[in-house]
Amino acid sequence: MTSFIHPQAICETKQIGAKTRVWAFAHILPAAKIGENCNICDHVFIENDVCVGDRVTVKCGVQLWDGLRIEDDVFIGPNVTFCNDKYPRSKQYPARFLQTVIRQGASLGGGAVILPGITVGRNAMIGAGTVVTRDVPPYAKVAGNPGKIIGYTNVADSELIVNPTPTEEAKELRVNGTRFYKMPRIKDLRGDLSAGEFGDQLPFVPKRYFLVFDVPSHKIRGEHAHKNCRQFLLCVKGSCRVLVDDGENRQEILLDRPEYGIDISPLVWGVQYDYSSDAVLLVFASEHYDNEDYIRDYDTFLQIVKQKQESNNT
Amino acid sequence: MTSFIHPQAICETKQIGAKTRVWAFAHILPAAKIGENCNICDHVFIENDVCVGDRVTVKCGVQLWDGLRIEDDVFIGPNVTFCNDKYPRSKQYPARFLQTVIRQGASLGGGAVILPGITVGRNAMIGAGTVVTRDVPPYAKVAGNPGKIIGYTNVADSELIVNPTPTEEAKELRVNGTRFYKMPRIKDLRGDLSAGEFGDQLPFVPKRYFLVFDVPSHKIRGEHAHKNCRQFLLCVKGSCRVLVDDGENRQEILLDRPEYGIDISPLVWGVQYDYSSDAVLLVFASEHYDNEDYIRDYDTFLQIVKQKQESNNT
Amino acid sequence: MTSFIHPQAICETKQIGAKTRVWAFAHILPAAKIGENCNICDHVFIENDVCVGDRVTVKCGVQLWDGLRIEDDVFIGPNVTFCNDKYPRSKQYPARFLQTVIRQGASLGGGAVILPGITVGRNAMIGAGTVVTRDVPPYAKVAGNPGKIIGYTNVADSELIVNPTPTEEAKELRVNGTRFYKMPRIKDLRGDLSAGEFGDQLPFVPKRYFLVFDVPSHKIRGEHAHKNCRQFLLCVKGSCRVLVDDGENRQEILLDRPEYGIDISPLVWGVQYDYSSDAVLLVFASEHYDNEDYIRDYDTFLQIVKQKQESNNT
Amino acid sequence: MTSFIHPQAICETKQIGAKTRVWAFAHILPAAKIGENCNICDHVFIENDVCVGDRVTVKCGVQLWDGLRIEDDVFIGPNVTFCNDKYPRSKQYPARFLQTVIRQGASLGGGAVILPGITVGRNAMIGAGTVVTRDVPPYAKVAGNPGKIIGYTNVADSELIVNPTPTEEAKELRVNGTRFYKMPRIKDLRGDLSAGEFGDQLPFVPKRYFLVFDVPSHKIRGEHAHKNCRQFLLCVKGSCRVLVDDGENRQEILLDRPEYGIDISPLVWGVQYDYSSDAVLLVFASEHYDNEDYIRDYDTFLQIVKQKQESNNT
Amino acid sequence: MTSFIHPQAICETKQIGAKTRVWAFAHILPAAKIGENCNICDHVFIENDVCVGDRVTVKCGVQLWDGLRIEDDVFIGPNVTFCNDKYPRSKQYPARFLQTVIRQGASLGGGAVILPGITVGRNAMIGAGTVVTRDVPPYAKVAGNPGKIIGYTNVADSELIVNPTPTEEAKELRVNGTRFYKMPRIKDLRGDLSAGEFGDQLPFVPKRYFLVFDVPSHKIRGEHAHKNCRQFLLCVKGSCRVLVDDGENRQEILLDRPEYGIDISPLVWGVQYDYSSDAVLLVFASEHYDNEDYIRDYDTFLQIVKQKQESNNT
Amino acid sequence: MTSFIHPQAICETKQIGAKTRVWAFAHILPAAKIGENCNICDHVFIENDVCVGDRVTVKCGVQLWDGLRIEDDVFIGPNVTFCNDKYPRSKQYPARFLQTVIRQGASLGGGAVILPGITVGRNAMIGAGTVVTRDVPPYAKVAGNPGKIIGYTNVADSELIVNPTPTEEAKELRVNGTRFYKMPRIKDLRGDLSAGEFGDQLPFVPKRYFLVFDVPSHKIRGEHAHKNCRQFLLCVKGSCRVLVDDGENRQEILLDRPEYGIDISPLVWGVQYDYSSDAVLLVFASEHYDNEDYIRDYDTFLQIVKQKQESNNT
Repeated sequence: MTSFIHPQAICETKQIGAKTRVWAFAHILPAAKIGENCNICDHVFIENDVCVGDRVTVKCGVQLWDGLRIEDDVFIGPNVTFCNDKYPRSKQYPARFLQTVIRQGASLGGGAVILPGITVGRNAMIGAGTVVTRDVPPYAKVAGNPGKIIGYTNVADSELIVNPTPTEEAKELRVNGTRFYKMPRIKDLRGDLSAGEFGDQLPFVPKRYFLVFDVPSHKIRGEHAHKNCRQFLLCVKGSCRVLVDDGENRQEILLDRPEYGIDISPLVWGVQYDYSSDAVLLVFASEHYDNEDYIRDYDTFLQIVKQKQESNNT
Repeated sequence: MTSFIHPQAICETKQIGAKTRVWAFAHILPAAKIGENCNICDHVFIENDVCVGDRVTVKCGVQLWDGLRIEDDVFIGPNVTFCNDKYPRSKQYPARFLQTVIRQGASLGGGAVILPGITVGRNAMIGAGTVVTRDVPPYAKVAGNPGKIIGYTNVADSELIVNPTPTEEAKELRVNGTRFYKMPRIKDLRGDLSAGEFGDQLPFVPKRYFLVFDVPSHKIRGEHAHKNCRQFLLCVKGSCRVLVDDGENRQEILLDRPEYGIDISPLVWGVQYDYSSDAVLLVFASEHYDNEDYIRDYDTFLQIVKQKQESNNT
Repeated sequence: MTSFIHPQAICETKQIGAKTRVWAFAHILPAAKIGENCNICDHVFIENDVCVGDRVTVKCGVQLWDGLRIEDDVFIGPNVTFCNDKYPRSKQYPARFLQTVIRQGASLGGGAVILPGITVGRNAMIGAGTVVTRDVPPYAKVAGNPGKIIGYTNVADSELIVNPTPTEEAKELRVNGTRFYKMPRIKDLRGDLSAGEFGDQLPFVPKRYFLVFDVPSHKIRGEHAHKNCRQFLLCVKGSCRVLVDDGENRQEILLDRPEYGIDISPLVWGVQYDYSSDAVLLVFASEHYDNEDYIRDYDTFLQIVKQKQESNNT
Repeated sequence: MTSFIHPQAICETKQIGAKTRVWAFAHILPAAKIGENCNICDHVFIENDVCVGDRVTVKCGVQLWDGLRIEDDVFIGPNVTFCNDKYPRSKQYPARFLQTVIRQGASLGGGAVILPGITVGRNAMIGAGTVVTRDVPPYAKVAGNPGKIIGYTNVADSELIVNPTPTEEAKELRVNGTRFYKMPRIKDLRGDLSAGEFGDQLPFVPKRYFLVFDVPSHKIRGEHAHKNCRQFLLCVKGSCRVLVDDGENRQEILLDRPEYGIDISPLVWGVQYDYSSDAVLLVFASEHYDNEDYIRDYDTFLQIVKQKQESNNT
Repeated sequence: MTSFIHPQAICETKQIGAKTRVWAFAHILPAAKIGENCNICDHVFIENDVCVGDRVTVKCGVQLWDGLRIEDDVFIGPNVTFCNDKYPRSKQYPARFLQTVIRQGASLGGGAVILPGITVGRNAMIGAGTVVTRDVPPYAKVAGNPGKIIGYTNVADSELIVNPTPTEEAKELRVNGTRFYKMPRIKDLRGDLSAGEFGDQLPFVPKRYFLVFDVPSHKIRGEHAHKNCRQFLLCVKGSCRVLVDDGENRQEILLDRPEYGIDISPLVWGVQYDYSSDAVLLVFASEHYDNEDYIRDYDTFLQIVKQKQESNNT
Repeated sequence: MTSFIHPQAICETKQIGAKTRVWAFAHILPAAKIGENCNICDHVFIENDVCVGDRVTVKCGVQLWDGLRIEDDVFIGPNVTFCNDKYPRSKQYPARFLQTVIRQGASLGGGAVILPGITVGRNAMIGAGTVVTRDVPPYAKVAGNPGKIIGYTNVADSELIVNPTPTEEAKELRVNGTRFYKMPRIKDLRGDLSAGEFGDQLPFVPKRYFLVFDVPSHKIRGEHAHKNCRQFLLCVKGSCRVLVDDGENRQEILLDRPEYGIDISPLVWGVQYDYSSDAVLLVFASEHYDNEDYIRDYDTFLQIVKQKQESNNT
C-alpha cells in the first residue's frame, strides 16, 4: 500500500513512505522527508528541511520547521509548538536554524512547547502543556513551565524504593548490577553517626571520592554509565532520586537518609535528579578519574550493553 | 434556518443542529453530533465519538477528539488543546479513550490545555493558557500551570468576607442557610483563647468533630452538600477559603482567624480551598457520620434543591 | 534536744525550734522565726520579717530578707539569692517589700536567683544557676536564664507518653481519671483528616469547646482542676505537653499529633506547657463555663481530693 | 510586486500591502488591513477589526481577533494565541472587545498566550510558551506562566553591572546621563554604616526622598523618565535591578548592596524590577514632586529625546 | 554621727564617712575609701584599691576588688559578683587590674555578675541574675545572660510610642527638641511607597544621609548627642527603638514602619537599640560630618545642657 | 614558712600545706586536705571530704562541698557555687555525693555555677556567670547559661584558620602531624563538585568512612586521639570547628566549605565543636574500627605523647 493523501491536503514532497496518511488541510513542502506508516493529521504544516521517521504520529495543528529531526515511533500531540530561532525578529533570519531532535519513541503531549535546539531523549514523555527549555534525558517524564523532570517512564511508582525495611545487608535491585545498602546509624544525644568499612560492609575499596552539592532543583546530574568504574552513592544531606538503568530495566531509589547507599556496577546507566536544595551527594569510585571511562551517550550505552550480552551468550 | 457550512469546510456528519455555522477549513467527521446554534470556527477538527451541545462556540485551531462531551453553552477559546490518552505512544492505542466532559456554561480560555479524563464543572472559567490537570468544580476560576483555583465566578471580590466588623452575633449571609460567627477571643500574655458554648452561642450540639490538615495548597476539600447534617466550620490555624452555594447564590468567606466560624445548613453546597500550608480546619457536625447523607454531585444537588423549593411552594 | 548555735554565729532571735542548728558566721536578727530541725549553714544572714518552717536547709552564703516565707522541708542551695525590691535604689525604700513564698518541699539549686514577689510551688525543683522570673507551679522543674519549665518532678522520663502504640481504644493512664485516646487518622492526597463521634468514640457530648493558641513557649496554661467538668484535649497543630496529677501520681503526655487526645476527669489537676510556637490546643468541655467550677489553688485541690477519698472510704 | 495569495488561501480583504504573502489555508476577513511585505503563514485566521503593520510575520496556527493592533516589524510565532474577552461566555458578547496592541519590533515566541487588553512594548521579546498577563515594557524579555520579566533585550548579560570594582568615584555608564556610585561602607561589630554627603560625594542636594517597598517580585516600578528631575537610587535592603535607557542604549545595574547608587539624569528612561521580597529602594530626587515632570509613555520619551538632540545639533 | 562598726566586723580602714554602717562579718582592708551614709552589710569584703561614694548600699555576700570605683547612690544587691581579671589564673597576676566603674545612682540586682573593665552608666538598672558583658548606657535596664538592654528606666511603658494615631503633622514629644512624624504611605498593588519633601514636610534640607544596618540584636548604636547637627531618623526596614533624652526627660519611640520618622534637635541625647535582624535605619543629617560636633560622654552632655539652660535663664 | 590562719578564721584541719593562707571568716572542717601555697579568702567554707591541690586560689564566698577534688593551680573566682546533689531535698541525702573534679590549671570565673558530677578539664576557662551543665574538655573556654564552648585557650583568634589562600597543596599546620588541604572545587551551573583521589591527592587509602550529623549546636564530638588510625576530615555541609592538639600546641580550623580537609595523624588529640545545625562531617579513617585504638583520656594522651617523645630522643 502506498501513502494516502487527503484531497484537501497539499503534499508537495515525493519522499513519503508507504502507508503514511496525510489528512485534510495538511501542507507538506517539497523537500521534506516523511517515513513509512506515519499519520499526518489535519492542519499540520511541514517545511522543507525536516526529516520524519517511520510510524510517527503528528496530530492536528502542529508545524514542523526547518531543522527538525523526528526519529521513528515519535508521538507529537495536537497543537505542539516547535521553534527554530531563540530570539526571532521579523525578517531577520539567523545564519542557521537551531536543530531540534526528537529521539525514537518519545511522546510530546498536546499543547507542549519545545524551545529551539533541544534534544528530547528516547521514550521520554513530555506532559501536555509543558514548556521544554532544556534537553530531556531518555525515558524522563517532564511537566510544567519551565518543564521539570517528575519521574521516569516504565518505572512504576510502586517500584520507587522509599524507606526500605531495616536490613543491613545489601539488597539486589531489579536492575542488574545494582544493590541497595542500609548502613548502620547510631543515634546519640551528641549527634548521629553512620559508618561503613570499605571492602567489608562496602563492596570495594575506593580510589576516589567526590561530592555533588548546590544543585539547582531542576537540574539533573549523572546521565552516563562507566565502562569499568564501580560507584557507591550516599546522599549524606537532604535527598535526591537515583535512576538506574541496565539497558532493559529501570528503577528509581529515593536517597533521603545518610545511611542509604546504592552500589552501581559498570555498564549501568545512572541519573540523579530532584535534588533537595540542601542535598550533598557523596560518591565513592572504585577507580581513579578517567575521562575515557565515561559513556555519555545513551544510544552508545545500549550498543555496548548489547555487544556485551551477545559476547556473553556466545 | 438550517446550519451553514462554509464552502471550504468539510462537514461529513449529518447530525448537526439548526443555525449552527461551520467555517472555512474546519473538518467534522461523519459520526460527530453537533447541537443547534453552535459556531464552529476556522481550522477546527472534530472526530467521530464527540457530542457537542447547543449554543457552543469552538474557536479556531481547536480539535475535539474521540471521547469528548461538550454540554450546552460552552465556550472553547482559540487553540485550546484536548487530549484523550494519558501516556500517548505513536501507534499504540489504549483500550478505551478517557472521556473528558465540559459541563454546561463552562468557558475554556485561549490556549488552555485540558488533560485527558477531566471534568470541567458548570460555568467554570478556565483562564487563557491554563494547563488543567484535575477536575474543576462548578463555578471555579482556574489559572496557571498546573491550574489552581483562584476564585469563583459570580462571587464579586467585594463580596468576599474578610475581617468582618466585630460583632459576636451570627450574621446571615446572602447564601440561604449560612451564617457567619465571630466567637469571642480573649487575648492574654500567656496565649490567646477562643471559646464557644454549644447550643447557646453555637447553633447546635455536635455529635461529631473532624479536623482537616496538611492539605496541599492546590487541593480542594468539601465539594458536597449534606441532606440532613448541619456543620460549623472554624479554621483554627492558618487560613482557607470557604465557598457556599445554595443553588442560586454563591459567596466566599476567608477564614483566617480561629474565632471566625461558618454555620452551614443542610442543602448548602460547600467547598473549601486555598488552604495555607499550616491550615487546620475544625468542623462540628450535627449528625453522626453517614455516607448516605452526602450529595457529591452538583447536578444532583441542584435537582434536590429545586424539588425542595417546589414542594415548599406548593 | 534544743537548738545548737555555733559559738562564732550570731543568733539574736529566741524563736528558734528544737534541733535546729546554726553554724559559724551565720547571723539571725531578733524577730526572725525559725522552725524545728533546721540547718542554717555558715555565712547565712536572716533578717527580721522572715518565717522559716520545720526541717528547712539553708546552705552557705544565703540571705533571707524581710518578706520571705519558707515553708517546711524546703532546701535552699548555697549562694541562692533572694530579692525583695523590683527596682532597688540605694536609700529609697518601697512602702512594703514584696513577699516571696517558697512552698513546702521545694528545692532551690545552688546559685539560683529568685526575683521578688515570686511563689515557688510545692516540691518544685529549681535547677542550679536558674534565674526565676515568674511563679513556679507545684512539682515543676525549672532551669535557665530566664527560668523555663523543663519537666515535672516525680515523672520519670521513661513515663512520658510519646508516640503510643496504634490502638484506637482509650488507654487508662496511671493517673486516676485520665485516659489516652488515639483517634483515627485518614491520610489522603488531598490532605489528612481525623475525626471523632461524641458520646461514642469520645467519652461525652461537649457543651463547650475552646481553643488555646499563640502561647509563648515559656508560658504555661491550665494549672487548675475542675470540680465537675470533664475535658477532652487535642493538640490539633504543633505540640504541647500535658501534665496530669490526681494528687498522688503525676504523668506527662506529649500531644504532638492531631489524633492524640487526653480525657481528663473532674478532680484531676492539669497543666499544659512547652507549647510549640504554632501549637493550637482544642478542648471539649462536658459543662458550660462556670467560674465556680475551677480549683485554682493546688493546696485546695489536695484538700478536696483528700476529703473525697475519705468520704469514699467511709 | 504586488501581494501573493496562495490558491488554497481565502483572502477577502483588499487592503493588503505590496510584497505581502498569504499562504495555504489562511483566511483573512474583508475589513482587515494588512501592511506591506508581511508573511501570513498557513492556517492563520484574521478577523475584520485588525490592523497589521509592515514587515510583520504571522506564523502558522495564529488567529488575529477583532481589536488587535500589530505594529510594524512584529514577529508572531506559531500557535500564538490572542484573546479579546476577559470572561468569555458562549453567545454573550461584551459591549466592546478589549484592544490588544503589539508595538513595533516586538516578538511573540511560539505557543505564547496573550491575555486581552495587553500592550506589548517596542522590541519586547516574549519567550515561547509564555502566558502574558500584564503589559510588557519596551525591550523587556518575558517568560513563564504567568509571564515575568527575566531581563531586557539588547543588554548583554556581560554588561549587567554586578559587584563593580571598589572605586568610590562615580563611574559614567554607557547610557548617557547615568553614573554608578559606590559609597563608603564602614563595617563595625555594632553594625555596618554607609553614608554620603549631598552635593559633595553625591551629585545634588535633594528636595525629596521616597521609599519603595513590599514590591511583589513580578511587579515592576518606574517605567518613566523625568523632564527635569534628577534622581539618585539606592537599594538599602535586598536587591533590585535597574534598567536605564537613553533612547539609544540600554544598560542594567544590579543594586544588591546598600552602598551601590545610581545617578539618573533627566531624560533617561528608568525601570526597576526583579525586587527581592525584602527590597527597599531609597530614591533622592532633585526636585519636589510634580506630576507634569513625568514622561510615562515610551514613544513620547523617544520623541522628546530626539527633539532635544536635534535642537542640540542645530 | 560617726560611722558604726559592728563588733564582729573587721574594719581596717580609717577613711570611712560619717553615718556609714559596717555590719557583722564584713571585712574592709586598710586602704579602702568609703563615703558617708553607706550601708555595708554582713559578709561583705572590700579590698584596698576601692573607692565607694556616699549613700551607697552594699548588700550581703558582695566583694569589692581592687580597681572598683563605686559612685554615689549606687545600690549593690546581695551576692553581686565583680571580677578584675579577664582570664584569671591562680598565682598569675596581670600587670594592672581592669577598672570597673559603677556610675551614680546605678542599681545592680541580686546575684548579678559584672565582667571586668565594665562601666555601668548613671541610674542604669541591672536585673537580678544578669551577667553584664559590656558597658551599660545611662538609664538602661539590662537583663539576661549575656545581659541585653530591655528598656530604659524612667520611661514608663505606657509612654513608649507605638503605632501612633494617623496624623501626618509633626507631633511634639515630651522630650524637648524632638518631634514624631508620620509620613504619607501610598499602598499600591505594585508595592508601597512613602515619601517626604525636604524643608516642607520634613523640617530641614539634609546635607548628608547615612544608613545603619546588619546590627546584631544586642548591640546599640547612637549613644551621643550633637552640638549643632539636627537629624531625622526613619527605620525603612524592620524595626528599632529610639531613646531620646534632653537631660531631664527620656522617651522611647518604636520605629517599626518606614513612614515613621523622628526629628532630633541638637543637644538631645539619642540611643538606638533593639534592632530587628533585618533593620535598616536611614538618617538625614542637617550638617556635613564633623567629628567635633559629637558629644559622646553623657556627663559632658549633661553639663553642656545645664550651661545652656543657665545662659538661657540669664 | 608554714601556713597562715587569720585570727577570725576557723581552721579545724591539720592537713594544710606550707605557705597556704586562710583569711577572715573562712571555715575549714577537720578532715579537709589543703595543699601548699594556696589562698583561701574571706567567707570561704570547706567541708571534710575535699582535696585541694597546691597553688590553688579560692576567692571569697565560695563553698567546697564533700566530694570536690581541686587539682593544682586552679583558680576559683568569687561566689562560685558548687553542688553535690542533682535533685537535693532537705534532710534527704543521696547514698553518695556526686564527685566534681576541677583539673589542673582550670579557672572558674566569678559567680559561675558548677553542676554536680562535672569534670572541668585542664586549663579550661569558665567565664564569669557561666552555668556549667556538662563536662568541659581541656583548654576549652565556656560561657553562658547553659554553658557552651566559645573557643579554646591558648589558641589566638588570629590563628584560627579561616578561608585559607587557594593552594591545593597540603599545608603543614603548627600542630605536629596535622595538615590542611584545599581540594579542588568545580563550579557548574548544574551544581558544584569537589573530589579527591585517595593515596594521591589524599594522604592515604581509607578502610572506613563515617558521617557525623544532627549534632546539637552545644555538643562536642571527638575528644580523643588515636594510637594508630589516621583520619581525614571534611565538613561536607554546614560548618564546624576542629581543634587539634599535639600535647604542646593547639590550633583551630574552621571547616566551612566542602573542599576544606584536615589530615590528622595518630597521637593528635582532636575535638570538633560549634557545629552548624545543618553540618555533616565526613571522616575517612586509615584503619578499621578498633575500640582499643582510642585514647579517650587527655592525661593518658599526654603521657603517651611524652613517652613517645622520650623514646624518640633516646
